[in-house]
Amino acid sequence: MLDPQGTAVKDAAKSVGYDAVNDVRIGKYMELKVEKSERDIHELLDELCDKLLTNPVMEDYRYEIEEA
Amino acid sequence: MLDPQGTAVKDAAKSVGYDAVNDVRIGKYMELKVEKSERDIHELLDELCDKLLTNPVMEDYRYEIEEA
Repeated sequence: MLDPQGTAVKDAAKSVGYDAVNDVRIGKYMELKVEKSERDIHELLDELCDKLLTNPVMEDYRYEIEEA
Repeated sequence: MLDPQGTAVKDAAKSVGYDAVNDVRIGKYMELKVEKSERDIHELLDELCDKLLTNPVMEDYRYEIEEA
């Protein structure tokens, strides 16, 4: 999958002397505070990601759950 | 720190029925492939983050290092 933004950052890094940077991929990072409910948290997060938070055609996602 | 984008996503989630979503914070996620060099990797990454990859006034950062 093409990542023009990542390529731009890599080229910028090299142009100012950071030759060691060989590849850059850029994505979104989100932290959600979600109240416990009777719904399964994985089911809820998958639904939120698929329907609202990501573009399933171009993006994949992964998440970690931290208990408050 | 205000996060208008995060607030917009939280409001959108609530407006389509995801009332359990209480807070959303959004940031950038980057994966870099960096060649080993004599430079200390932490020093290199801190410099890259401070000078190129983040806006130190508004953003903080953290990173994890995975050996290829």
